[in-house]
Amino acid sequence: MTSPVLLAFPDAESLAARLAEASAVPLKPIRLHRFPDGESLVTLPPELPPQVALVRSLHHPNEKLVELLFALATCPELGAQRRVLVAPYLCYMRQDKAFAPGQAVSQRIVAELLDRHAEVLLTVDPHLHRVARLEALFGRLAAHALSAAPLIGAFLAADPPDWLLGPDEEAEQWTAAVAAACGVPYRVAAKVRRGDRAVEVRLPAAPWRQSRVVIVDDVVSSGHTVAEAARQLFARGAARVEVACTHALYGEATAELLADAGIARVVSTDSIPHPTNRISLAPLLAAALRECIR
Amino acid sequence: MTSPVLLAFPDAESLAARLAEASAVPLKPIRLHRFPDGESLVTLPPELPPQVALVRSLHHPNEKLVELLFALATCPELGAQRRVLVAPYLCYMRQDKAFAPGQAVSQRIVAELLDRHAEVLLTVDPHLHRVARLEALFGRLAAHALSAAPLIGAFLAADPPDWLLGPDEEAEQWTAAVAAACGVPYRVAAKVRRGDRAVEVRLPAAPWRQSRVVIVDDVVSSGHTVAEAARQLFARGAARVEVACTHALYGEATAELLADAGIARVVSTDSIPHPTNRISLAPLLAAALRECIR
Repeated sequence: MTSPVLLAFPDAESLAARLAEASAVPLKPIRLHRFPDGESLVTLPPELPPQVALVRSLHHPNEKLVELLFALATCPELGAQRRVLVAPYLCYMRQDKAFAPGQAVSQRIVAELLDRHAEVLLTVDPHLHRVARLEALFGRLAAHALSAAPLIGAFLAADPPDWLLGPDEEAEQWTAAVAAACGVPYRVAAKVRRGDRAVEVRLPAAPWRQSRVVIVDDVVSSGHTVAEAARQLFARGAARVEVACTHALYGEATAELLADAGIARVVSTDSIPHPTNRISLAPLLAAALRECIR
Repeated sequence: MTSPVLLAFPDAESLAARLAEASAVPLKPIRLHRFPDGESLVTLPPELPPQVALVRSLHHPNEKLVELLFALATCPELGAQRRVLVAPYLCYMRQDKAFAPGQAVSQRIVAELLDRHAEVLLTVDPHLHRVARLEALFGRLAAHALSAAPLIGAFLAADPPDWLLGPDEEAEQWTAAVAAACGVPYRVAAKVRRGDRAVEVRLPAAPWRQSRVVIVDDVVSSGHTVAEAARQLFARGAARVEVACTHALYGEATAELLADAGIARVVSTDSIPHPTNRISLAPLLAAALRECIR
């Protein structure tokens, strides 16, 4: 067995199946068993080719990171020396410095862990701030940050809104890429974060009245940013507000918050399994995967 | 600041406070914050002395391991080059080989993680099987496996039963140590495990009739072993059956199983916070800690 295989964790099976089809790389399952005492048993296929690609997004990451470590560390024993980690959603990207003295800089610590146990990383729209380039986080590992902006733009082009709104200046380039892909004009708001859940959004001037606006963002988590942006758009007379994001990292409470803010629809990629998934990352990931396991 | 400090995770605060008192090493808290997206923020005291001892038992370990990694990796940045990990309950000791092809040997992988990020490990009655000595799991890290048997024996000596019963041959030496410390005769049963929850116990011959028996074990988890042993003791005419263990690694369902089997009382050490805790490991850990941070 020498051809590469995809190895999917159970929580990433749907995306992995689409990726297998798009890339023509065969898929095998990683099996998980949870013992009554909370320990995890990770079982890989007993024989592996020299190159494997493990598929798992790292939302709600702590349990997943430990199981991922077990899988990555076991690959070489089973014959796979070159490990590609396909983690469409990468965790701990926000904690990129000690915001108060004594804080662990988890971005760096997680990067070091992955650096030690994988050779390649494919991820999508990592939420970077002070570290501008994903590659800068790693030593040995070759990291590739893909952008879902063209896919989201292509989806929106099928029924283009009047405006796109990016929620903050950091997202300007990404918002511009979505806009370019759907041929829709865009504006970018100014965001001031005040803790986990409080956020202030300053809307730029534009003829919002009677318009249909899609707020685009890399990740929707607490939902406070997009809810606040939607409220302000309605206050300026917008007729319909939707959201398009790469990573839908939220549950029921946030879904209600978004509905209460009047947001008519949320669409997301399948980086994280979610009821709002409409856009598959499979073609994007398949192209990148074929490049790195050629 | 040059004197060593104890650093306690919130879930280990009670034991850490007793350990601080017994060892005269001052205690400082490690603060944990959980973000809405499931990521953990770990905050240590902003300045640390060259030697620190981090206290956390690793039951239900996956979340705890990630947060522990964050804390250990941050210590050197804050001035602590020598990290003693006080983990009275150590995780993943059972998965010491691939029981089926492709299984991750998590014992080794967790040991390598700790080996890389701590200098000393203090633990109590680790559940070892094929690897006979804890030290053999580590390269750089100095591992010390302490035994709670003398403390458990001392507790039982205050109101000695007629017999002690060890549940399997592997526990013979440990059972003998408890017996020696309380001056009570002991027997050891033969255990055959059939999956996570099914177990067969073969009771040795002894005059069990009308006797008061304490089943002693390093860890009570599913409870099936001690429940089955209790049922057989009652079938041979035992009058009262109790349990004494180092690690009470169980919840409501197991507590009911033990009560249903007629077990009158369970006592445990405070390695894992539990309603059955009666015996503090603080003196044992304090003596070992003073040795390794002298």
